Amino acid sequence: MDILKERILKDGRVAKGGVLKVDNFLNHQIDVKLYNEMGKEFKKLFDDVKVDRILTIEASGIGIACVAAQYFDVPVVFAKKAKSKNIDGEVYTSTVESFTYGKSYDITVSKKFILENENVLIIDDFLANGKASLGLIDIVKKAGANVAGVGIAIEKGFQDGGKTLKEMGINLHSLAVIKSMDDEGNIQFED
Amino acid sequence: MDILKERILKDGRVAKGGVLKVDNFLNHQIDVKLYNEMGKEFKKLFDDVKVDRILTIEASGIGIACVAAQYFDVPVVFAKKAKSKNIDGEVYTSTVESFTYGKSYDITVSKKFILENENVLIIDDFLANGKASLGLIDIVKKAGANVAGVGIAIEKGFQDGGKTLKEMGINLHSLAVIKSMDDEGNIQFED
Repeated sequence: MDILKERILKDGRVAKGGVLKVDNFLNHQIDVKLYNEMGKEFKKLFDDVKVDRILTIEASGIGIACVAAQYFDVPVVFAKKAKSKNIDGEVYTSTVESFTYGKSYDITVSKKFILENENVLIIDDFLANGKASLGLIDIVKKAGANVAGVGIAIEKGFQDGGKTLKEMGINLHSLAVIKSMDDEGNIQFED
Repeated sequence: MDILKERILKDGRVAKGGVLKVDNFLNHQIDVKLYNEMGKEFKKLFDDVKVDRILTIEASGIGIACVAAQYFDVPVVFAKKAKSKNIDGEVYTSTVESFTYGKSYDITVSKKFILENENVLIIDDFLANGKASLGLIDIVKKAGANVAGVGIAIEKGFQDGGKTLKEMGINLHSLAVIKSMDDEGNIQFED
């Protein structure tokens, strides 16, 4: 998706530790017009699959998923990371090893909100080693639902998350796949 | 806002400890069409004030803020609760005492994303004792920006957050204000 790639080149920054900073348009400050274009693009890419529900994970996935859901006309559910009084009853849980936060955490979705045999499209902002996506896929499978696909804003193609998901037969579409990036700030995309 | 009140009566549930559960349409599973109607309503309510930016807080505020921002045509910024590699540089911080999580936490916004003299509309899903809103207002003031208003989906009118904000001169609009609710599940709204 050209406008996303152009925006990454214009406003993205490679920080120490292999972190791509896109906090001025994607995951701290948010350009909602760009989210809308991304939502339209996800709809195009997943137009041939049945989608009953969009599943994402707090926090950065929520805005992308909500804006995209307008084009799919389906509800969004977001997996929660923290235990709270606001989630009770029966839940599906999976453990995710986080690259960003440097530790593992549990993600939780109420059993009420993923139904058996539903077709669930997973949407998230980043795909690197794939741990968050694998946690969400795990939850969809525990619910007896189908993974309609995984839609990602930015995939780090030089990490193995994309390969892992494709080997599992997941219908993966990433709007921008980074082939390489270095500490000098050079970013290259896959075609 | 009648459709929100009707939805709360239809799908909301009063859980033990004074928690209003609206997790099947507002803050776990999300009805994006309802978010859209809420966004339009916020635009009507704040149509007479200049809004340069919408500020919210992760996680449940993000979706509401992003969908609403489409009607204001401004960027969204969300305050982060956890320390992460993905936030660096100079930040504004405030401490929030949480009713839901039963402990205090720091919220953080990069200084890059709230500019001096900007007009910032704060949007969040809930207002109860007002601690989250007060944290966001504190950050806006630390930035030397103006609070254009506070827009809330559901205010618990029997807690003192709304009163506190109004006494501070804040332009507060809540889409549904709950006058009372009890363990039998009776919910009454203010007019």
